[in-house]
Amino acid sequence: PGEEATPSCDIGDCSPGALLVLVERPGTPSSELSVRSHPICWGMVRVLGWEGLGAGLGAALAVSPLTQDSLSFLFYSGWVCAACHGPKLAAECQSAGYPGTLIPYKCDLSNEEEILSMFSAIKTLHQGVDVCINNAGLARPEPLLSGKTEGWRTMIDVNVMAVSICTREAYQSMKERNIDDGHIININSMNGHSVVPQSVVHFYSATKYAVTALTEGLRQELREARTHIRATCISPGLVETGFAFKLHDNDPERAAATYESIRCLKAEDMANAVIYVLSAPPHVQIGDIQMRPTEQIS
Amino acid sequence: PGEEATPSCDIGDCSPGALLVLVERPGTPSSELSVRSHPICWGMVRVLGWEGLGAGLGAALAVSPLTQDSLSFLFYSGWVCAACHGPKLAAECQSAGYPGTLIPYKCDLSNEEEILSMFSAIKTLHQGVDVCINNAGLARPEPLLSGKTEGWRTMIDVNVMAVSICTREAYQSMKERNIDDGHIININSMNGHSVVPQSVVHFYSATKYAVTALTEGLRQELREARTHIRATCISPGLVETGFAFKLHDNDPERAAATYESIRCLKAEDMANAVIYVLSAPPHVQIGDIQMRPTEQIS
Amino acid sequence: PGEEATPSCDIGDCSPGALLVLVERPGTPSSELSVRSHPICWGMVRVLGWEGLGAGLGAALAVSPLTQDSLSFLFYSGWVCAACHGPKLAAECQSAGYPGTLIPYKCDLSNEEEILSMFSAIKTLHQGVDVCINNAGLARPEPLLSGKTEGWRTMIDVNVMAVSICTREAYQSMKERNIDDGHIININSMNGHSVVPQSVVHFYSATKYAVTALTEGLRQELREARTHIRATCISPGLVETGFAFKLHDNDPERAAATYESIRCLKAEDMANAVIYVLSAPPHVQIGDIQMRPTEQIS
Amino acid sequence: PGEEATPSCDIGDCSPGALLVLVERPGTPSSELSVRSHPICWGMVRVLGWEGLGAGLGAALAVSPLTQDSLSFLFYSGWVCAACHGPKLAAECQSAGYPGTLIPYKCDLSNEEEILSMFSAIKTLHQGVDVCINNAGLARPEPLLSGKTEGWRTMIDVNVMAVSICTREAYQSMKERNIDDGHIININSMNGHSVVPQSVVHFYSATKYAVTALTEGLRQELREARTHIRATCISPGLVETGFAFKLHDNDPERAAATYESIRCLKAEDMANAVIYVLSAPPHVQIGDIQMRPTEQIS
Repeated sequence: PGEEATPSCDIGDCSPGALLVLVERPGTPSSELSVRSHPICWGMVRVLGWEGLGAGLGAALAVSPLTQDSLSFLFYSGWVCAACHGPKLAAECQSAGYPGTLIPYKCDLSNEEEILSMFSAIKTLHQGVDVCINNAGLARPEPLLSGKTEGWRTMIDVNVMAVSICTREAYQSMKERNIDDGHIININSMNGHSVVPQSVVHFYSATKYAVTALTEGLRQELREARTHIRATCISPGLVETGFAFKLHDNDPERAAATYESIRCLKAEDMANAVIYVLSAPPHVQIGDIQMRPTEQIS
Repeated sequence: PGEEATPSCDIGDCSPGALLVLVERPGTPSSELSVRSHPICWGMVRVLGWEGLGAGLGAALAVSPLTQDSLSFLFYSGWVCAACHGPKLAAECQSAGYPGTLIPYKCDLSNEEEILSMFSAIKTLHQGVDVCINNAGLARPEPLLSGKTEGWRTMIDVNVMAVSICTREAYQSMKERNIDDGHIININSMNGHSVVPQSVVHFYSATKYAVTALTEGLRQELREARTHIRATCISPGLVETGFAFKLHDNDPERAAATYESIRCLKAEDMANAVIYVLSAPPHVQIGDIQMRPTEQIS
Repeated sequence: PGEEATPSCDIGDCSPGALLVLVERPGTPSSELSVRSHPICWGMVRVLGWEGLGAGLGAALAVSPLTQDSLSFLFYSGWVCAACHGPKLAAECQSAGYPGTLIPYKCDLSNEEEILSMFSAIKTLHQGVDVCINNAGLARPEPLLSGKTEGWRTMIDVNVMAVSICTREAYQSMKERNIDDGHIININSMNGHSVVPQSVVHFYSATKYAVTALTEGLRQELREARTHIRATCISPGLVETGFAFKLHDNDPERAAATYESIRCLKAEDMANAVIYVLSAPPHVQIGDIQMRPTEQIS
Repeated sequence: PGEEATPSCDIGDCSPGALLVLVERPGTPSSELSVRSHPICWGMVRVLGWEGLGAGLGAALAVSPLTQDSLSFLFYSGWVCAACHGPKLAAECQSAGYPGTLIPYKCDLSNEEEILSMFSAIKTLHQGVDVCINNAGLARPEPLLSGKTEGWRTMIDVNVMAVSICTREAYQSMKERNIDDGHIININSMNGHSVVPQSVVHFYSATKYAVTALTEGLRQELREARTHIRATCISPGLVETGFAFKLHDNDPERAAATYESIRCLKAEDMANAVIYVLSAPPHVQIGDIQMRPTEQIS
């Protein structure tokens, strides 16, 4: 590993999608993995997608108990740009010598049929899902007093419904294969714990409050089902991603300013949190990590 | 007032709907109002609908500052059965001599177009809405590990989307008429504050966590807009309504048992909470009332 | 009732103390009670003490189920100034024709021995306590990075320890007399639910977070003990009392400014909340009322 | 490193105390450190004390940005048994070849004067404190309805007052040496976030709710002071320590049973959380890690 890939992609092409990462050589020491930076691919996909393949999820799986004696299948939802979606990205991963295989799925997460088809294809082609990371999420700048219903609905569809559907499908996939040490990780937000006085994220905050409840409810149901599958959410403050550019898609300057006022969390900080959570011993369930940029005030 | 009306209705006919209560004689002392019990109409509609007309909302409006020198229009969403929906109910109210006029609207709250049509009709016929009580809400018994998407979506549509749409429309109605002392009340739940180990209400709990955030976000936006319109949620534990019968619609015995184990909150307890909140002086904003049956353990 | 009493008192004389209100004529209709304003006595004592005797606690007990067929003894802790402490206040109450008798106790609430002596005297002289309102509370302006330990300890002693001791003693008093419908009300704060960026109230906020937990723990223990005694907290935002004058005792202008920026909650708003909570039917337990001035932003 | 030390100690000797760990060779790769288990020393001291010296805090400091070009001084409070308190432990650490020097301080944390003397000695002898871990904490089995005041006060003194005093002293130590990248870590509890129906931990829960507020208040004050010092709490569920033996000191069987029903968190799981938090880049502030045993139900 080491050299840079430079796929051409653009934020305008991004949409919520999903990746499946098949780790073919579990147990690879993390020191053999390297960090690659992807210069273009905006949004949370940077966190755990391309860049994350080396340093993030790849490493996470390499150290995860899941990978000791079997292949592991990690499902990850996120913003995926068109150019990263094709075989090009997978080929680059392969040529870079990563210990895992990237299998991108194109999927509109706001469409349940597409999600179900994807999980069906995953089952047919790759057995199933052992780890599910519900990372796709978005905000639309629609205040409660004046917002457009369509923007609210989009947030509900991706942040709440898709999370719930993927969680259920991933759990059923684990259950039918008797996976007892799976993991479901919801990327939440500090907005899922307190409501800040910014009207453009109020409805978003409501969807993330729902994620807080969904994660705890999931934990309880997993206990009731007597499995050791773990449920976690990670609740970041301001992360430098394409999030603000999606939020303020008519005002890129405002979006950029969001990330310039303080030193923000980075994609790899999120990846490190995921690694920490996944690599904890099976008897340790991290329920929530609340993290902010050190300089963030509210 | 005093005699009993006995409209024929049945729980099977109930669906989320809305009532508009026009108070024609504001300022009527609450001692002139009487409590009527409605023997059939299940569900939360009992709280503030028929029964509430006398003792609940009627009284609330009678003592509310809103009613000092003008007509007041109160919008209330709830479960409404078909038989209560027609002119029969309104006629009974009139003949009973209530100081307000009940104007029922038939409206599928999970359909935005119907909500918008209703608010448009309210504007044309009755000026607008001064007080909005988002009471309609439901649970479907769909756990997170195995639930049906459709049940989840119904909960989202009524508990989150309809609340948000009605709130926005009510606020816009207040704004265009320069109403500065309006009130928006969301009927939340103790499930909106903590997640209890009952898988059948986990998704419901997520929708109510969203309501918690929506109410606080609304409060902040109302402050930012420099109005004195108030935002409140009321968070009950177990209330004896048709809720459990809707939740366990295939298992009425289980539903009935829900209300027999302890002495539950009653419809009028909810009405009294609404009265307390509405009748507080304009400078007092009750943000949340958390209330449980005294005997409720969890 | 009606004429004004004007005891001479001064904020400098105030200290945490307690009142016992003996309601000799329970069931007196609240319409026979009148509101009196006390012009001098600063602090939360105004809420439920003197002024409250007519309109607040007196009314509350008059409508409380507790008072149907027996004397009721209400214990109330608050800031009490020296001049109000003596027989003068009690005499004024009597001559004003209130339906209850005020029995002031001088008690340093930060001294457990004094509290125990007081409860012992209450038992000997007046049977015991049926309703306990833990209202005494204070803030000292000691930030976490630089505060004086003594100020922190004073807050702990009054806001946490005295609340816990009075609660235990009141419960034991109810238990030994087989009172099953008692009530313990803790005056909490919105600072008990979220931490606002004002360093002078950070430690205070920690003591009020403790009160939030104490109230819920109390509720659970009362259920476990199979009683119907109720546990409530009331969580106000900014109330116009002597609180700020105690907080900024070196800077009365700053204290005064606290209450001038917005239209604050008043003593009677707190009394009304207590009345609402106490007069709810025995099967209704209000766990928390969160209330702010309508104009309060944070 | 590698061989086992077997200091003789006993739980009866344990009391809240403090250790200062001086890392003389910062930057030592964690791979050169090894895990040692201490067979006797009960309680949370196992987490980060002896055992932690190799694998826990030592490693944490070895990877912490703090240690790049200077000595680092880490202050840690915990349960320390008499036998571990003397020079014996320090000598063993030295002979084991650890890259840090252990400097035990005997200190009754419930006595402010002793704390101040300790910090004064630390200043004179070792410059000051760069990282402060407030780990000492305890529960006494005193329910709210019937508990002894003394048990409550002990919990307040150690869990709230000592945390606050050590935090203030540590911050002042950082401030006077212009340390901008210090860290204060409070060991909180899941009981600091929700109240569970176990009366023996209700007051304990109140003290931990206070810690939740103290940590967020601290974060805000550190931002207001424009430093990059970080504030973190870690909130574990059931950890296998001496905690239950202290709680049920009259009933060791009950204490032991606490840890046998499920597979608990271990001391090293706590150490790993501390390492994760400390080794995050300076711009990343982990505010809270909520973690439970995977099998823990409530």
